[in-house]
Amino acid sequence: MDAINSALAALSIQADKIVKHAASSSPDSWKQAISDVAQSVGLTGNQQYTKTLVFKPKTAKSAAPTPVVVIARDDTETNTNALAKHLNQKDMRLATPELLKEFLGATKDDVSPLSINTNNAGPLIVALDAALATSSDSFAVHAAAADQTLFMTGAEIAKYLQSTGAKVEVVDFSKLKAEASTPVAKASAPSSSTASNPGATQGPIPAAAKKKAADAAKIPDAELIGITVRKDGDFPEWYAQVLKKGDMLDYYDVSGCYILKPWSYFVWQSIQAFFDAKIKEMGVENCYFPMFVSADVLEREKDHIEGFAPEVAWVTKAGSSDLERPVAIRPTSETVMYPYYAKWIQSHRDLPLKLNQWNSVVRWEFKHPQPFLRTREFLWQEGHTAHISLEEADKEVMQILDHYRRVYEELLAVPVVPGVKSEKEKFAGGYYTTTVEGFVPTTGRGIQGGTSHCLGQNFSKMFNISVEDPNAPEELRGKKEGRLHVWQNSWGLSTRTIGVMVMVHGDDNGLVMPPRVAQIQVVIIPCGITAKTTAQEKDNIMDTCDATAKQLRAAGIRAKADLRDNYSPGFKFADWELRGVPIRIEIGPKDIEKQSVLTVRRDNKAKAPLAQKDLPASIAKLLDQIHDDMFARADAEYRSRRKVCTEWDDFTKILNDKCHVVIPWCEVEACEDAIKNRSARTASQDEAADERAPSMGAKSLCIPFDQAQFPDIKGKKCPQCGVDAKRWTMFGRSY
Amino acid sequence: MDAINSALAALSIQADKIVKHAASSSPDSWKQAISDVAQSVGLTGNQQYTKTLVFKPKTAKSAAPTPVVVIARDDTETNTNALAKHLNQKDMRLATPELLKEFLGATKDDVSPLSINTNNAGPLIVALDAALATSSDSFAVHAAAADQTLFMTGAEIAKYLQSTGAKVEVVDFSKLKAEASTPVAKASAPSSSTASNPGATQGPIPAAAKKKAADAAKIPDAELIGITVRKDGDFPEWYAQVLKKGDMLDYYDVSGCYILKPWSYFVWQSIQAFFDAKIKEMGVENCYFPMFVSADVLEREKDHIEGFAPEVAWVTKAGSSDLERPVAIRPTSETVMYPYYAKWIQSHRDLPLKLNQWNSVVRWEFKHPQPFLRTREFLWQEGHTAHISLEEADKEVMQILDHYRRVYEELLAVPVVPGVKSEKEKFAGGYYTTTVEGFVPTTGRGIQGGTSHCLGQNFSKMFNISVEDPNAPEELRGKKEGRLHVWQNSWGLSTRTIGVMVMVHGDDNGLVMPPRVAQIQVVIIPCGITAKTTAQEKDNIMDTCDATAKQLRAAGIRAKADLRDNYSPGFKFADWELRGVPIRIEIGPKDIEKQSVLTVRRDNKAKAPLAQKDLPASIAKLLDQIHDDMFARADAEYRSRRKVCTEWDDFTKILNDKCHVVIPWCEVEACEDAIKNRSARTASQDEAADERAPSMGAKSLCIPFDQAQFPDIKGKKCPQCGVDAKRWTMFGRSY
Repeated sequence: MDAINSALAALSIQADKIVKHAASSSPDSWKQAISDVAQSVGLTGNQQYTKTLVFKPKTAKSAAPTPVVVIARDDTETNTNALAKHLNQKDMRLATPELLKEFLGATKDDVSPLSINTNNAGPLIVALDAALATSSDSFAVHAAAADQTLFMTGAEIAKYLQSTGAKVEVVDFSKLKAEASTPVAKASAPSSSTASNPGATQGPIPAAAKKKAADAAKIPDAELIGITVRKDGDFPEWYAQVLKKGDMLDYYDVSGCYILKPWSYFVWQSIQAFFDAKIKEMGVENCYFPMFVSADVLEREKDHIEGFAPEVAWVTKAGSSDLERPVAIRPTSETVMYPYYAKWIQSHRDLPLKLNQWNSVVRWEFKHPQPFLRTREFLWQEGHTAHISLEEADKEVMQILDHYRRVYEELLAVPVVPGVKSEKEKFAGGYYTTTVEGFVPTTGRGIQGGTSHCLGQNFSKMFNISVEDPNAPEELRGKKEGRLHVWQNSWGLSTRTIGVMVMVHGDDNGLVMPPRVAQIQVVIIPCGITAKTTAQEKDNIMDTCDATAKQLRAAGIRAKADLRDNYSPGFKFADWELRGVPIRIEIGPKDIEKQSVLTVRRDNKAKAPLAQKDLPASIAKLLDQIHDDMFARADAEYRSRRKVCTEWDDFTKILNDKCHVVIPWCEVEACEDAIKNRSARTASQDEAADERAPSMGAKSLCIPFDQAQFPDIKGKKCPQCGVDAKRWTMFGRSY
Repeated sequence: MDAINSALAALSIQADKIVKHAASSSPDSWKQAISDVAQSVGLTGNQQYTKTLVFKPKTAKSAAPTPVVVIARDDTETNTNALAKHLNQKDMRLATPELLKEFLGATKDDVSPLSINTNNAGPLIVALDAALATSSDSFAVHAAAADQTLFMTGAEIAKYLQSTGAKVEVVDFSKLKAEASTPVAKASAPSSSTASNPGATQGPIPAAAKKKAADAAKIPDAELIGITVRKDGDFPEWYAQVLKKGDMLDYYDVSGCYILKPWSYFVWQSIQAFFDAKIKEMGVENCYFPMFVSADVLEREKDHIEGFAPEVAWVTKAGSSDLERPVAIRPTSETVMYPYYAKWIQSHRDLPLKLNQWNSVVRWEFKHPQPFLRTREFLWQEGHTAHISLEEADKEVMQILDHYRRVYEELLAVPVVPGVKSEKEKFAGGYYTTTVEGFVPTTGRGIQGGTSHCLGQNFSKMFNISVEDPNAPEELRGKKEGRLHVWQNSWGLSTRTIGVMVMVHGDDNGLVMPPRVAQIQVVIIPCGITAKTTAQEKDNIMDTCDATAKQLRAAGIRAKADLRDNYSPGFKFADWELRGVPIRIEIGPKDIEKQSVLTVRRDNKAKAPLAQKDLPASIAKLLDQIHDDMFARADAEYRSRRKVCTEWDDFTKILNDKCHVVIPWCEVEACEDAIKNRSARTASQDEAADERAPSMGAKSLCIPFDQAQFPDIKGKKCPQCGVDAKRWTMFGRSY
């Protein structure tokens, strides 16, 4: 009863609120017992009840069990399998009476939220029914005895649980049930009540606070078809909904893997077409290496593989036979390809060797996956080149980086900052790393957009890729000293591009597709059809829409007429807005009369009539205008959020304003560590409770190549350590 | 001594040829002992010696061991690790005295080829040194006793070993050594002495016969750079050399996997570009599903997965952690994709759904791998579509098949026969399978080029992919009976295309690339530069070559000037011939004078001058001509090797003439089995010894769609079973 008393105290509930009644041994007898005493204790109306279920999931024998306690309205259907998947637990079984005793010191007749206390809460996962947590009604809970009941609101229950230190997850069982009934269980689908900002404080969030934040993020009157939360309200949930409802991807039954649907794959194919042509102009050739790597080869470069080793997926079986030697799936291909470079490069005439692969790689990360940004398999290209000199390698590094910049800016309308990484942040085993850094305004976090590495001679020495130096003095010819290790680069761009694009441009109505990568650039919707419209008039509208689409397609514009007759224009508008089609064309009887169409831009909702005459040319121009405007807006936003800072006192403030910080930096690695630690600490003191202002420290993102935009560095000191600054460097929180 | 006597009898060697001498206990003491008695027994000159080494490779505990006996010249360096890899054995250790006794009843002092006999030969693998097998010298072998020696030629040793029934492999240890010293051990590289025609008689081939065949296949005076065997002499070795020396691929250190080098990957990208455009016109969209499949999903369609199950690769570990649930790597994607089809297809308005993936799949086959034709990972496209009606599905099946035909005929200049597969040969779980069947003239074997399957409703019933039938009578609306299971197709084309192309067109000088898929279509080589040529003249020639290449490239022709100054024109000719560049242009001083160039066709070696004026147009025309000629030649060859047959007696004869057999067929499955058995049996009686005429039985390859080319089927009987024939059907041996 100590627990009960402290619970009552915590909640400022008087002990005399406890209702005494006949001991109950089942839900029905409990209800009967309460009903019998209701009048005498002044209970009115229908009482509501809770149920408390305790499960033991399967764990390794040596591990301590993690009991799962479900606290729900008694009429909530709690699907155990779906819940297990949701909580990432295995084989959940109802706890035996012995275990119930052991875990909570309770029996099936008196177990209740109040059975949880600070002493036993440690290992528990509490799944709190959203229908309970969000209700302001009072619910019956056993007051630690089969013959005592307390009435508490959902918020009070949540608050109490929180006070015990138990790990509480608010679970929407109705949603879980809906998901479980789709053909493939979406174990990896984020759910609105649990999606958390990756990298944010991972501690438990009071359920009530969570509920409040969730309410604030809700878009009032959002249709089922639409996005139900605001981008700046609940960004992770918004991102998940936009991708799903915008038809970019679907969740998959292997965690951390996603299906790229045609809408997103088209973006990738557009990037491929652009970049492939560019590198072919540079003399790069495509090839394909097997996805499998032997352990020997994988582990040859120790420094390099160290970063990847824990994430390497291993094939150990074929059919039911064990493989003699397991093979890895490539996490990247340096060590896969370079033994062959050593074989293929026999003379300086074999240089430069420039190969690229379009493939997928696997990094079995255990962190919270995020579509496009952090997935266990992802599509990318990886270029690997070998050169006779550092100068030649340098030049290529920059050419490639500029192609990456152009992919972002000229295809995706996403601004990036090209620069070089600090020593701490460069590619393991490389010489230096250049990068294009993007920015997600909603979270204020940076994101690495693509990297072009100069590997120097590290790998060529390791793999002995060398040629006779054509410039070696005569007396060294044919000798070891006359040989030269080649200079190497590697560079990669992945489907992460797509995630950045969505985060930057999307809005509360869904995706906003940059025109050059939109599979459909123009959707044409027949309008103005009413009950009075004759069949002939209707046909005329439909035909005009169809003819307009054909006319645009003939001009190379990706246009589609949406002639579905079972949906209203309004539904279609919302539908295509969700998918972010850059231009909607509406054609009604009056437009036909005036020989014009009405265009509606997705990016800024601007409406404008356009003459049917020369429509393809004016639409092409409008698409370019939309691209330019989208880029200009995003660029202005990014620039306004890059703040020059010369005093340490301002550093974390700028960071917490969701901005990047550009400081005159000393480029000392220890100083980078200090910056990270100091900015993390300050942040967490300020606002530990707000999950959308991550308390993580700032990393150096890049040293921008364009230093001229900043004041003269001469005489500037590093604001963190006071040492002479070398270059202006951009710091920020990042993905 | 029984073994010795029977050995002597088998070889017609007199028993008195055995030399008795002091017992030896080491190679040196043996030589000393022989030397001591040489004069007295009439031995002249230096004697040559053999060594016999017995190894026990590592095997599963329950399995019987497979001892490996190495029989080599005593001065041959036998690298145990390289040999183990070559023989696909693990961890070979020298046998202990006990095991030596057990395996061969011998001791280290008397073990010899003659220790092997019909009683103990069964489990043995004998690795016979090529330097011994091909020598006509006599070599000392112990005559089953430390104090007795017999002198035998390599051929006699080989013949004797053969007579015991042991599995003999002739091994070129010097080659093995060379391969082992390259940076990555090429475990899967075929070697000339062991490459065998897959599907051919797998029994041992007498080493001497093999040597003879190998000699006949050799191309006299072939430079090291060139192909050293004739295409029609040793086809498997020719294929391996052409691919390697033609720069199509390199071997890889994971068995069954190969590196696609730019020269072959360009072919694949050309096929992709063609086919991707074609299917997009049909409304097919590209997407990407994860490479991983959960066991549940993989195993959902039992019939379908049965065929793949033993070849499925399983990922069971990430880093050093075991995965809770292993995941498979897709062998194909039917069961991966269709659960989502069930979710995405909710109404007949969602139909047709037409998706395609460009990806790689893994089938961990344990059969002998062959580049492009049978590899553990391969690149392909897989299309998966769903339709409202069978008619619509039918139509698409045929459209896709025609695209496949065009890939072969219009890009690769390879003729194919489009048709439908028999019930026995159709895709497991499908409704019917259409195919384009190719032909490899050198072996007379057919090869399935690409398949377009109608899956009917089998999968849609299994995965419950259904819609409300828009044509259902009113009273069935909303009821189960009013629902319709969709009609599905799947279709795939892989990098196998490239292997077929090489096999059909290549010649004794290397690859012959069809112009439309050649990464370099025209190579321009400066000629006529002698010691007398002035620097200015030389510059002029070089500049003209360079300018010509630029001129052609500007016209969209893939041209390259080979201006390397460290190679002779002759070397360059051979080099580019190996790689199969369709046109060589030679430019010398006289050509420049005449304002013309000399063109040399790779396919038929024809030389012709062409005026510099309008060169791009005339080269473009010539490239088309080459394509047409290559196709016409291959087509004429294929047609001449498709023989109509109405009498069973002719069936196997036609087959053994390396032809396909077209019979009026009953289409009864049991008859197909009978045809296979009867044609296999007859073949093996005729020519068990000839490895290039495989004794495998004939399968039905397809029922050609073009039946009109054959006589009226009416009244025809199946030549195998005498039942009424239904359609003309093509049978043959196949890959």
